[in-house]
Amino acid sequence: MILRLAHVEVAVDDLDAAHGFYVGLLGFVEHSRDGGRLLLRGCEELDCWSLSLVERGGPGLTHSAYRVAVRADLDELEALHARLGLATERLPAGHEPGHGPLLRVATPDGHRSEFVHEIDEIDPYVEGRLALPMRRPAAHPGGVPPTRIDHVSLRVPGVAESLRYWCDTLGFSASELWLREDEQPHIAWIRRQTRSHDVALGEAPEPAFHHFAYAVADAAALVRAADLLGDARQQQRIEWGPGRHGATNALAMYVRDPAGNRLELYAGDYARDLDRPPLRWRVPDYRLQGHSWWGFPAPDSFGETAPLLEPDSPASARA
Amino acid sequence: MILRLAHVEVAVDDLDAAHGFYVGLLGFVEHSRDGGRLLLRGCEELDCWSLSLVERGGPGLTHSAYRVAVRADLDELEALHARLGLATERLPAGHEPGHGPLLRVATPDGHRSEFVHEIDEIDPYVEGRLALPMRRPAAHPGGVPPTRIDHVSLRVPGVAESLRYWCDTLGFSASELWLREDEQPHIAWIRRQTRSHDVALGEAPEPAFHHFAYAVADAAALVRAADLLGDARQQQRIEWGPGRHGATNALAMYVRDPAGNRLELYAGDYARDLDRPPLRWRVPDYRLQGHSWWGFPAPDSFGETAPLLEPDSPASARA
Amino acid sequence: MILRLAHVEVAVDDLDAAHGFYVGLLGFVEHSRDGGRLLLRGCEELDCWSLSLVERGGPGLTHSAYRVAVRADLDELEALHARLGLATERLPAGHEPGHGPLLRVATPDGHRSEFVHEIDEIDPYVEGRLALPMRRPAAHPGGVPPTRIDHVSLRVPGVAESLRYWCDTLGFSASELWLREDEQPHIAWIRRQTRSHDVALGEAPEPAFHHFAYAVADAAALVRAADLLGDARQQQRIEWGPGRHGATNALAMYVRDPAGNRLELYAGDYARDLDRPPLRWRVPDYRLQGHSWWGFPAPDSFGETAPLLEPDSPASARA
Amino acid sequence: MILRLAHVEVAVDDLDAAHGFYVGLLGFVEHSRDGGRLLLRGCEELDCWSLSLVERGGPGLTHSAYRVAVRADLDELEALHARLGLATERLPAGHEPGHGPLLRVATPDGHRSEFVHEIDEIDPYVEGRLALPMRRPAAHPGGVPPTRIDHVSLRVPGVAESLRYWCDTLGFSASELWLREDEQPHIAWIRRQTRSHDVALGEAPEPAFHHFAYAVADAAALVRAADLLGDARQQQRIEWGPGRHGATNALAMYVRDPAGNRLELYAGDYARDLDRPPLRWRVPDYRLQGHSWWGFPAPDSFGETAPLLEPDSPASARA
Repeated sequence: MILRLAHVEVAVDDLDAAHGFYVGLLGFVEHSRDGGRLLLRGCEELDCWSLSLVERGGPGLTHSAYRVAVRADLDELEALHARLGLATERLPAGHEPGHGPLLRVATPDGHRSEFVHEIDEIDPYVEGRLALPMRRPAAHPGGVPPTRIDHVSLRVPGVAESLRYWCDTLGFSASELWLREDEQPHIAWIRRQTRSHDVALGEAPEPAFHHFAYAVADAAALVRAADLLGDARQQQRIEWGPGRHGATNALAMYVRDPAGNRLELYAGDYARDLDRPPLRWRVPDYRLQGHSWWGFPAPDSFGETAPLLEPDSPASARA
Repeated sequence: MILRLAHVEVAVDDLDAAHGFYVGLLGFVEHSRDGGRLLLRGCEELDCWSLSLVERGGPGLTHSAYRVAVRADLDELEALHARLGLATERLPAGHEPGHGPLLRVATPDGHRSEFVHEIDEIDPYVEGRLALPMRRPAAHPGGVPPTRIDHVSLRVPGVAESLRYWCDTLGFSASELWLREDEQPHIAWIRRQTRSHDVALGEAPEPAFHHFAYAVADAAALVRAADLLGDARQQQRIEWGPGRHGATNALAMYVRDPAGNRLELYAGDYARDLDRPPLRWRVPDYRLQGHSWWGFPAPDSFGETAPLLEPDSPASARA
Repeated sequence: MILRLAHVEVAVDDLDAAHGFYVGLLGFVEHSRDGGRLLLRGCEELDCWSLSLVERGGPGLTHSAYRVAVRADLDELEALHARLGLATERLPAGHEPGHGPLLRVATPDGHRSEFVHEIDEIDPYVEGRLALPMRRPAAHPGGVPPTRIDHVSLRVPGVAESLRYWCDTLGFSASELWLREDEQPHIAWIRRQTRSHDVALGEAPEPAFHHFAYAVADAAALVRAADLLGDARQQQRIEWGPGRHGATNALAMYVRDPAGNRLELYAGDYARDLDRPPLRWRVPDYRLQGHSWWGFPAPDSFGETAPLLEPDSPASARA
Repeated sequence: MILRLAHVEVAVDDLDAAHGFYVGLLGFVEHSRDGGRLLLRGCEELDCWSLSLVERGGPGLTHSAYRVAVRADLDELEALHARLGLATERLPAGHEPGHGPLLRVATPDGHRSEFVHEIDEIDPYVEGRLALPMRRPAAHPGGVPPTRIDHVSLRVPGVAESLRYWCDTLGFSASELWLREDEQPHIAWIRRQTRSHDVALGEAPEPAFHHFAYAVADAAALVRAADLLGDARQQQRIEWGPGRHGATNALAMYVRDPAGNRLELYAGDYARDLDRPPLRWRVPDYRLQGHSWWGFPAPDSFGETAPLLEPDSPASARA
């Protein structure tokens, strides 16, 4: 059983610039920097990391990863993908730092996913006392800061077909749908936990990467994020927001990192059981009220996507 | 499989006073008022109601109710409680308005629980358009408002024994524990979803009711709640807070309703998988930092509890 | 000595629609509605009213009004305007409800101002106790609410010339200036109290009315305002924001009322003594960072202005 | 004419500890540290500093300082104090770093005040562009941060007598009064600008120092301040709050610095002209609703005061 989104791996072109942006400006917590790879987490996460930034010519996404309930789920998911004729690969414990054995798969809609059960948590105790577990880190008082990974937004060439894989086969549940006039889904928000989504699937000519999202505490944290960018004379990195989404009911702001990857900072959300029917947004509601409950439109650049990149091979494994 | 807390039923002594407080002042959304019973929900809930206030000599709790994944879970839970020698009762669809068939049980630690699968949702569409689903209701712009039911806090005569029932038998997972010097739990926060808790179990001589909690949007909503109470010259209803809990990391305020029931307004929280080990708070951390991260103590009255009341019998069923 | 902006009078085309918007949706406090005139105030004001809405074919501005330190200031201001060859008019106590004797003048840049000393305050006591003076009104818990009038933004055909009147003659102090490449001011923010401005003067071909502004408590109140508009399906009334201004450092949102008048909701600001030199914004900073510290531009419609309307004459005085 | 409170000088026992607390934890901006003196300001102030911390056995207050409109006001104030038989002293430009000539006086109620006109402002431009004037400093993204000095709270042996000096002689205006049953003032909030106060005068057996206050942006900043103290395991420094004052309508939190000085962090406030009559709080309203609009009382330690210390003499002048 899939539990939730666990991490994303995003390509950047300059790891120093990425470090300055994610750690220095926004306040992500650094787990490690090794070779061309920077591993980060939000300040309330106990998982040792949830964002992998690799220096290999970004922007782009190599894969998203999902935690499963027990290790045996990997066998079941391997068999399931084999039955579908999709490539799978087992990677040993430690291939991802702090992670147990992995299953890597090609999805039918052109993406790569990893499944994993064991993810090391950081030790929440210092000298026997709880030391700020899931809290604002005393060691890094600046920044926004982001609290935890929230979702990844993928572009797929057929949302309806993708939902057959993600929902009917993998057990994701659609929380909200934006329907075209022909009642076919144009964007689907799907999840394995009770918030609005782990993954968003949006229609596009080719598989591609739209954005990834981290939660922040509240509206005040979004204001702080926007102010930090303005104060650093980087207001041009803000692509949309802060604003309220109709779909998902979140307060959100989209920011471009120095490599051009789109990061959403996300506050709010709701809880609803997985067996409930999805909320359905219809044209012409969506553009005005589904995307932007406060009415201001996304800029043209919001349609841009980043490519999907090949993950590294075991032969080039990160030791 | 139990999904989450679904509702609580709380006794009040004056339903008009309760209506003024919960609906008029705090901004709960009214589902129905019928006979001596007022059914309410938070403004982001689609479940038709999550709080039942009954006029029968409060303060007190009759029962808490939990949603299960499929109707067949009721049979399984009935058999499980029978094996434990605990009283069970099946109640027909409609016994609780808008609910399907129920299983009512006596818990081994002296409480009453209901399990139910079918709970009607409100229609989120008006004239074919999404009408503020899970949002601030246009029809009720005042109040705080509370967004959704969060948890119930029960007192039990032995937390360790209670955890054997709630966790080992029913499948709840402890997120945080306050341990005594003998390493036995004094308070346990347990859940079936990934937030910190559906239920808190605290040690006490007898089974009793400590409080129930509704989520609010953020710190600003808590400030607004405190201001509304002050403006209405009801500041004496505020028992503790607003303040930050160490355990659960929530911003919270405890308020006494006109009957004396303790309502917690709750902002913040975090997400963590159910299979993770609980965070452990130890004396002397707890009083200073577990309960009150900002250091100010709870008043003596915070130790007071309210009684458990008999639920109505089917013979006196609410038609 | 002029103390501050006291009120503005704005024209609307439908007083019922204005009442629904200002009182019903945004939470302005109603002082009175009489004939074609609705008098309102913010929830923290003790002045009996600060916004006059008149039903006479809006959008448009008839005048802005300023409180003076003593009644004798009216004589001095009358003489001063006479020396400048500008029309003046004395109006008796009660011409504006709750106001003492007024001096009405034509400004050299095409606007009308009123000066007044006596403005009735509401009684802040109920049964001998302070009843929410300068606070959130218990009688009107909905809405944003706006707290107090902040400033009025006028368009004038020559900002440099206007500053000679407003600053050199009347004693206003410029807090911030947006300078053109020739170092001439394009917009000036001027004040008689220590916040950033009572009046903004912006260059335009003809004298005109750009917007008026009310303060709100904080960023959370701006979010609430935007949500209330979205929930009411009036998101199209939001013209810009919520966002951060560079100039004045305020969080702000511009909203069009049903008649088309532009209302700014304004949070933040700072304090600086009147004798300090103005902060100077220069091209190309202004469009990106002076107007929008977060980078998103104002829409084209933000250039639109509303006309200046003739004030009523004493002959048609409001009895 | 006195404009406003300009700075306070507070005694600490350990300047390193003070630096860690004020700069490292809370985010005050450092102007200079020289010998035993640390000069700080809030992040929105252009005045070069507003808080002087001197290492000389705190807690305690040496003096508070007030800015006047023109330098000639010093002569007038010197004559005025001489007529009252009060000691005065002229100090040259540079005695206080970045300040022009000073007048130091003994007040009739046992305090020391300084009056000054010239206070250097920091240069708000970097390479010709406005560099975050009156804003969150990019160079110090952590901390709360405090924005500007707000007020100082003094204890005096007779509030009614003190008001004759501060209001009738110096021209301060009382915004709010807490009256005893005999209608005599027990605490007075007085100001020379339009916010609620520059100075609070509270009744006590001897002249003493109660607290000084800095403004913060909003409720979210207060929550952040409390969290930073909790995260640093310094929650015992929080003496009261965060909470709402009835008098002044501010959100506030009182914190003890490492030397024991009481610092108030203060959000909210209002504006009212100086000629308006004071709001009058009466027993028994004050304790419940004047001090604490949310109802929770101040601890006994809130009655403690710190001593008044002799200012340094010109002979020991800071070169």
